[in-house]
Amino acid sequence: MASYRAPIEDMTFLIDELLDVSGTLGELSAFTELGLGPELTTALLDEGAKLAGDVLAPLRRVGDEHPVTCKDGAITLPPGYADALQQLGAGGWMGISSDPEYGGQGLPELYATAACEMWNSANLAFGLAPMLSAGAALAIAAHGSEQQKQLYLPKMHAGEWAGTMNLTESGAGSDLGVMQTRAVPEEDHYRIHGQKIYITWGDHDATDNIIHLVLAKLPDAPEGSRGISLFLVPKFLVNADGSLGERNDVYPVSTEHKLGIHGSPTCVMAFGDKEGAIGYLIGEENRGLACMFTMMNEARLKVGVQGLAAAEGAYQQALAYAHERVQGGVPIVQHPDVRRMLLTMKSLNEAMRAFVYTEAVTMDLAHVGPEAERPRQQMRIDLMIPVIKCWLTEVGQELTSLGVQVHGGMGYVEETGAAQYLRDVRITSIYEGTNGIQAADLVARKLGRDQGGAMRDALADVALTVAALSSHEDAALQAIGHSLGDALAGVEETTAQVLETLQDNPEVALGAAFDYLMQCGYLFGGWHLARSAELATARLAAGVDNDFYRAKVATAGFYAEQILPRCAGHAGAVAGAAGSLSSYPVNWL
Amino acid sequence: MASYRAPIEDMTFLIDELLDVSGTLGELSAFTELGLGPELTTALLDEGAKLAGDVLAPLRRVGDEHPVTCKDGAITLPPGYADALQQLGAGGWMGISSDPEYGGQGLPELYATAACEMWNSANLAFGLAPMLSAGAALAIAAHGSEQQKQLYLPKMHAGEWAGTMNLTESGAGSDLGVMQTRAVPEEDHYRIHGQKIYITWGDHDATDNIIHLVLAKLPDAPEGSRGISLFLVPKFLVNADGSLGERNDVYPVSTEHKLGIHGSPTCVMAFGDKEGAIGYLIGEENRGLACMFTMMNEARLKVGVQGLAAAEGAYQQALAYAHERVQGGVPIVQHPDVRRMLLTMKSLNEAMRAFVYTEAVTMDLAHVGPEAERPRQQMRIDLMIPVIKCWLTEVGQELTSLGVQVHGGMGYVEETGAAQYLRDVRITSIYEGTNGIQAADLVARKLGRDQGGAMRDALADVALTVAALSSHEDAALQAIGHSLGDALAGVEETTAQVLETLQDNPEVALGAAFDYLMQCGYLFGGWHLARSAELATARLAAGVDNDFYRAKVATAGFYAEQILPRCAGHAGAVAGAAGSLSSYPVNWL
Repeated sequence: MASYRAPIEDMTFLIDELLDVSGTLGELSAFTELGLGPELTTALLDEGAKLAGDVLAPLRRVGDEHPVTCKDGAITLPPGYADALQQLGAGGWMGISSDPEYGGQGLPELYATAACEMWNSANLAFGLAPMLSAGAALAIAAHGSEQQKQLYLPKMHAGEWAGTMNLTESGAGSDLGVMQTRAVPEEDHYRIHGQKIYITWGDHDATDNIIHLVLAKLPDAPEGSRGISLFLVPKFLVNADGSLGERNDVYPVSTEHKLGIHGSPTCVMAFGDKEGAIGYLIGEENRGLACMFTMMNEARLKVGVQGLAAAEGAYQQALAYAHERVQGGVPIVQHPDVRRMLLTMKSLNEAMRAFVYTEAVTMDLAHVGPEAERPRQQMRIDLMIPVIKCWLTEVGQELTSLGVQVHGGMGYVEETGAAQYLRDVRITSIYEGTNGIQAADLVARKLGRDQGGAMRDALADVALTVAALSSHEDAALQAIGHSLGDALAGVEETTAQVLETLQDNPEVALGAAFDYLMQCGYLFGGWHLARSAELATARLAAGVDNDFYRAKVATAGFYAEQILPRCAGHAGAVAGAAGSLSSYPVNWL
Repeated sequence: MASYRAPIEDMTFLIDELLDVSGTLGELSAFTELGLGPELTTALLDEGAKLAGDVLAPLRRVGDEHPVTCKDGAITLPPGYADALQQLGAGGWMGISSDPEYGGQGLPELYATAACEMWNSANLAFGLAPMLSAGAALAIAAHGSEQQKQLYLPKMHAGEWAGTMNLTESGAGSDLGVMQTRAVPEEDHYRIHGQKIYITWGDHDATDNIIHLVLAKLPDAPEGSRGISLFLVPKFLVNADGSLGERNDVYPVSTEHKLGIHGSPTCVMAFGDKEGAIGYLIGEENRGLACMFTMMNEARLKVGVQGLAAAEGAYQQALAYAHERVQGGVPIVQHPDVRRMLLTMKSLNEAMRAFVYTEAVTMDLAHVGPEAERPRQQMRIDLMIPVIKCWLTEVGQELTSLGVQVHGGMGYVEETGAAQYLRDVRITSIYEGTNGIQAADLVARKLGRDQGGAMRDALADVALTVAALSSHEDAALQAIGHSLGDALAGVEETTAQVLETLQDNPEVALGAAFDYLMQCGYLFGGWHLARSAELATARLAAGVDNDFYRAKVATAGFYAEQILPRCAGHAGAVAGAAGSLSSYPVNWL
């Protein structure tokens, strides 16, 4: 089995060249002391790549073959996972983009995104541990009291304590308003009673403590989602001096037997089966969902990254196999259909990476960019998040399946490790808001709130690239520009259609939402890959002799010719959604 | 978990109404005595549905959770599998379409196809047992000596003995020419030595004997695929009177740990590790591959059926869940995006079923139809087989994945049983010729051999339907006709493109083959679903009051609006294949 090597060349190209981290972010007050730029990029990526390739990747199959178990209220992780988590903490990776005031590294989200890609390519089940911990820490940072931040964040950023998010209950999945977990006030804290399901990395002994963030309802809370509060429930209570106190009344009941991510403990968690779990309110009462939404953008962007990451891992393994495997007297990489599959993987991976890294910068600018620009950047990232979460995870499924296909019969044998990418990534379309929820969010909220203003703003930016490329003297770029222009025109048209139906008949707009989102995803991915090709062409024209740049142009050409046409298929489905879909009686299904 | 119920209403509609089995096949001499028609159809489907729903379906999860094991040269099947196989044999299903002279039922392939769908919806791992046995029996029937046929076929058709196909070796997958297994002549038989891999249902004790068909090379055989012969290697030697003799030197070495079909023993088989396995030549020396090709069409059609079958099983379970699961105060079947997913599944299932059942009739007509028509029917089925095998299995993957998605988080938990459909069906794109091989077969062989004649013939038939519907007085049919016409025009265009590049630059044609095939698949599926809608409309116009017919029209309308647009995406990729794909250097991947 090929071992995973982080695609540092492409990452560096994006960070230092296309996105020009030093120029774009380096001068912002939040980052000036860090010295953003090629030197830092290389140092960070090299260090991360070592950890990902040498430590995490070898544990991918281990976790799959030694699934997490739960016995007597405690979880056993696969061999090696606890040690790997400690290495991640010791390297400072757990708080890579967190506030330095509480022990974080304070780096831009852009670097956190690259790190996230590496961990998840190497080992998606493992990658969830830092992802969830970072999410929990972010919620505390955004809504916790100063005392809470000082007490919990430094340990979490150092990786000594982990964090979890406890939202879902058996009757409350996408619809959190109906949850049953209750919180009763008592002195300076609350007693939590209830059961949560699908709690990722819900318990383990790889860290000294686990900080659970839990959604629950107060007595007499308003009905529905406006009556939900957020609580901090430590596995071990924490004394004022930061030392650990008593074991809290929160235990894993069982773990799920899942299609993939066997190395990640997906727990049913029991809160307060005995005396009640002690919890501390975060933010205001009944404002728990709002607190959650703060971190939603970050979390969903990273789930999108998981889609890319799994596909990159699958690509590397399939490519290595295609070079080795001889059929018909030549390595199968020479067969046209195998080349088609590999180039589909490579071009979509590079498009996804360019897209999500670009929007990680948007996120940084929305948080710490020039004040005047922040609202526009926030509108942009809010718009892009559902596209990234859904499109990258859908594409991730297609590409990991292609990875199996390149292997032929060997791909169906588990020991090969190709099928695991497909099984692992399958969850990413479901959790953190199903892809159906993302599509509805894009159409009903993100288009609806400003009648498509943010979308038109984004499409105007795409149009600038189309104009530049279509009139470019380089023929390859010109062709890419024309394809991108066609795809853009298609999205402009469906955007108008969706906005119109959203007013007249929201059911129709929601029925068209998934195809509309996918159409947008292929366009935006193609846009950023086209920008990459434009830059690469400029470098080549300036006399830089580098096959990476030549490959980038050819890859973007393939995407423009072979992948962008998919937009037309989705556009057709959007246009047709007003017909049989919305009028089809449920009892005929 | 919803239990599987065979979709008898749709099956009956296709068999007795759309395909009019009594009119189309009933008068052929091969079938006159059977009394083909509604009464037989209902009796057969009811009986099959009982077996599928009550016996096979409950064993689907059992086989997944109790995978086959191999120890000391013997296989242990999951509990209940041996008994189920015996029930299938006792019911006469093993020889359903085989020659009555050797104990077969002599029914048309059309019924065998419906039965195959049922077994595989209920339990795909199990469904491979009758499929492989039938394939082996067919090869013996087509190429065996009279003595071989009398000795082996009646027992195989009665299900007392099973059959296997032994082609693949570790170095010889898609390229069989390089195989290592050797056959040395000795008296009236041969001694076989070699190892085969991926042998489906390679060993078990559910039947008294297993008849292995094995490809091997004679000493001094010509190089490559022209030097391969076919041998019959019984697990227990068979005496002249049909009684069982000595154990032959053929043993399972191990079974694969696979992504899915855990209940199907996928064996490494050792032939002749001791004294050499005794084998008997089937057909002529060095003509083994030709013998295999005889049964290839049947086998590939049935693998296509597996794609449909898994998708139908997944649909039924997802639909039941969508009715049960309440979120936002209503069952999720009311949510527009869930309806989109379910209707995508339903419409594609009905399109696949109409397509493959239609071509099963083509196969019957090619075999036993009026002499003068047979060559044309054979050209048609030869053309359609790669489309059916590839398109149905690709769609099967998409739909089983949608089945998981409808379940949300529950879909990722194995006990739900939704993910198993996805895991099981994933092999169908790989075995019996990978889908890449199917695409190459369609373009290089099936288009190339008559410069697209058979394809143009098929497209002319589609054009008749387009003409009839486009000018129909019924508005819904008219709209379907227009969409189908657009899709047809697209395939006419890409067919011309592919034929042109096939001459000038075969690499380009082969690179475009997969997208071309998928485009054809969506067209043909849509064609037969449109024909179904046309017939249903006529029935309604004639005063039959039946929601099945109304639903058929609406389903075809959805397909025309939401699914047919995909053709445009594939067409774009075909058109673009002449560019970056063929010129992309392998070392840039």
